[in-house]
Amino acid sequence: MIPEDLIIPLTAIVGSDNALTGENMAPFCRDWRGRYSGTAIAVVFPADTQQVSAVVKLCLANHVAIVPQGGNTSLCGGSVPLENGSKQVVVNLSRMNRIILLDAVNYTMTVEAGCKLADLYEVAEKQNRLFPLGLTAVAPHCEIGGNLSTNAGGIGVLRYGSARNLVLGLEVVLPDGRIWNGLRSLRKDNSGYDLKHLFIGAEGTLGIITAAVLKLHPIHRSVAIACVAVRGPAAAVELLAHLRSNCGDTISAFEIISRSCFDLVFKNIADTDEPFSSKHEWVVITQLEDVSRVLLDTALRDVLNKFGSDIVEFEVTSDKNYAERWWKLRKNISEAQKCEGVSIKHDISVPVSRVAEFITRADAVLHKKFQGIRIVAFGHMGDGNIHYNISMMNTIQNEDFISQHEETVNKLVYTIVSELNGSISAEHGLGQLKRDTIADYKEPLELELMRNIKRTFDPFRLMNPGKVL
Amino acid sequence: MIPEDLIIPLTAIVGSDNALTGENMAPFCRDWRGRYSGTAIAVVFPADTQQVSAVVKLCLANHVAIVPQGGNTSLCGGSVPLENGSKQVVVNLSRMNRIILLDAVNYTMTVEAGCKLADLYEVAEKQNRLFPLGLTAVAPHCEIGGNLSTNAGGIGVLRYGSARNLVLGLEVVLPDGRIWNGLRSLRKDNSGYDLKHLFIGAEGTLGIITAAVLKLHPIHRSVAIACVAVRGPAAAVELLAHLRSNCGDTISAFEIISRSCFDLVFKNIADTDEPFSSKHEWVVITQLEDVSRVLLDTALRDVLNKFGSDIVEFEVTSDKNYAERWWKLRKNISEAQKCEGVSIKHDISVPVSRVAEFITRADAVLHKKFQGIRIVAFGHMGDGNIHYNISMMNTIQNEDFISQHEETVNKLVYTIVSELNGSISAEHGLGQLKRDTIADYKEPLELELMRNIKRTFDPFRLMNPGKVL
Repeated sequence: MIPEDLIIPLTAIVGSDNALTGENMAPFCRDWRGRYSGTAIAVVFPADTQQVSAVVKLCLANHVAIVPQGGNTSLCGGSVPLENGSKQVVVNLSRMNRIILLDAVNYTMTVEAGCKLADLYEVAEKQNRLFPLGLTAVAPHCEIGGNLSTNAGGIGVLRYGSARNLVLGLEVVLPDGRIWNGLRSLRKDNSGYDLKHLFIGAEGTLGIITAAVLKLHPIHRSVAIACVAVRGPAAAVELLAHLRSNCGDTISAFEIISRSCFDLVFKNIADTDEPFSSKHEWVVITQLEDVSRVLLDTALRDVLNKFGSDIVEFEVTSDKNYAERWWKLRKNISEAQKCEGVSIKHDISVPVSRVAEFITRADAVLHKKFQGIRIVAFGHMGDGNIHYNISMMNTIQNEDFISQHEETVNKLVYTIVSELNGSISAEHGLGQLKRDTIADYKEPLELELMRNIKRTFDPFRLMNPGKVL
Repeated sequence: MIPEDLIIPLTAIVGSDNALTGENMAPFCRDWRGRYSGTAIAVVFPADTQQVSAVVKLCLANHVAIVPQGGNTSLCGGSVPLENGSKQVVVNLSRMNRIILLDAVNYTMTVEAGCKLADLYEVAEKQNRLFPLGLTAVAPHCEIGGNLSTNAGGIGVLRYGSARNLVLGLEVVLPDGRIWNGLRSLRKDNSGYDLKHLFIGAEGTLGIITAAVLKLHPIHRSVAIACVAVRGPAAAVELLAHLRSNCGDTISAFEIISRSCFDLVFKNIADTDEPFSSKHEWVVITQLEDVSRVLLDTALRDVLNKFGSDIVEFEVTSDKNYAERWWKLRKNISEAQKCEGVSIKHDISVPVSRVAEFITRADAVLHKKFQGIRIVAFGHMGDGNIHYNISMMNTIQNEDFISQHEETVNKLVYTIVSELNGSISAEHGLGQLKRDTIADYKEPLELELMRNIKRTFDPFRLMNPGKVL
């Protein structure tokens, strides 16, 4: 059978309205950032798990690869077909967007993989429950199946863990088309190997997540947000430990922002201004939340006052709308940087205790090697996860700089990450982007174990080929 | 080579003081509850990971099986050699009890597998940190390697998760003797499959955990404990949801105790008495903890008062010593039951919202089928995990009852668990005890995937054979 002959049986499974071919496939074959573009036989939109299973079985029988896709918001080219891969079918789960069950007493909801993250926030909130996976910017677009397949992170990880920690059960269509029903909603279950953790974060290379049981939390009634100018990253590291000791699990965000980020935001994003009357090199935004109606702002002020002189100045509010002015600065850094052209982006993590060391060392090495660069460092310091982006101040020189030196810059940054026992992909995954690079930074034995697992689950390598490994 | 010839090279690896043979092996070949007894060529006590690796390689070369062992406190015969297995070596990790690193700022500690759980509590506390794996009764005996290999649960799971959730990284000696160094201390790392979750809860059947990076939490400064008489299990379920909504993550325990438990404890344990002036059928003990110095007892009283008439009466204290009187009742249930002879024990879980349904249905079916039985139901209701033990009131009839009806009782209980999408092993694991039974309650496809993983990691089935699968 030539690949195109698959279109008729595929259409028979999902219905003619739910299969795209030719130019109509374009939006589903190009990635979120516009850097990866691939080719496919068809893009199909199954209505339910049985249809996913039937599509997978059909593809397997014809040795055609499958690219599972949700909202297609991967930042690493993980959710689009390969450029040179003609024998691929995109299986987009967006139609599978039902809430199967919300059990408020069990603090769980069972949902299909195509549910949009923003919709899950809303459904939970209606029952006075919180689904705390904090990817607010992309939440209207991304889907929970993709969030789980990439073990999504975001703002709330230091309190709630990443996507992995919010799952109790999964339903997965395996590479041979069979359906594994692991949709349990149990807090404790020690009756064998925990299979769900293999599929979470596997970026669709071991099977297609079709439904999940998610953990919910109680909704918050109090909030306090602080904007804190600190002496530097080392002070920020100590401040976080101090806050955890004194505020415990109420801390739901701890983000660091360098001066360069502010400069970009003020220049390129309308209606933004300095959070303080004077300029500061390093600012932290931190947030406390609690289910009780307590005076979190008073508590937060006390704790900040006790920290000492490594805080230059700070402001605290319990008004979310007021604080939105600060969050706007944080949330628009990527957008502001885009206005200045491309940059060499890194999504790295190190132990929280070593974040300052990472920034100091990487800044020194890069500034020494490359004159006139701008380093934009910001992110989820509470998890040791820094977004660390490099470009030329001079936008005319920038494209040349990137085309000539991207590899060297990556190597300098990743070597430091590696020496600090960090990760070159903290939350975005590997996808196509870092599939080759990871081989230089992960032990051969670990890569071998990963390949063994891949072979066990997907011996014909038909599940999202060219991603991860 | 005959098995006994292995003793010399084994001794060469670990030193003659650290290898036991003959009768000296007895305590390490018999399980915690005295129900399983096995035979081994030797019991060895390696000093470090290299020695573990060398022992495993030697055993592999000679087709001799390995039984990894920590404190040997398994309740399912998971940590002792098989009865009929002459070609087995017990690898006991108790000598590997070093704290490699405590990073208070990163809120982590890196420890060897043989560290006793109670020692970890202490080491963390000295740095104002909490290691919240709540197995207080067995903590002086059990070791962290075993806790992780069985994904231990205990009292604090509803707040902190089970052992699995307290791990950031692992070091594992694989079944071929190679050492996987996954000792990362990162909060975020999406750079490939998450291998650590395969080894956690695998009961030593995929490799030997030799070290781990554990998450720490800030130490608490406030506590409030309530003893609450409720109308029944259904009221307890609703009370838990109400408490979570109003007290959030401060809830660190929620345990339910049936009347039969109290009767046994008062009869058999010295210096215990009714928590209230009148007798109640169902009592809950719940605990709030917070890092701040807040009036948790006042808050808890308010929340309990608002719950309404399904609470018969309650008492709250913030004095841990005073509350110890209540905790003593909970902690001595197993001991008290032992005084009355053996019983048919179950360690089951269902969704929290269905705990009352489980108890009501199981009680009804069992009382109808068997006259004169005593049902002892208690446990971690906050996680949907009930210990549900059955015996005859009349101790003379009891042994006959158990020998004749254990299988029927198990079947009746597990059928209800299964219908409620629960687990027949919530926290104790499978070990030898439930290895065969699980086949009746887990989907064949899931068992097949487990066997495939086992085959991939341990093709010669030499790692803790006869356990789990």
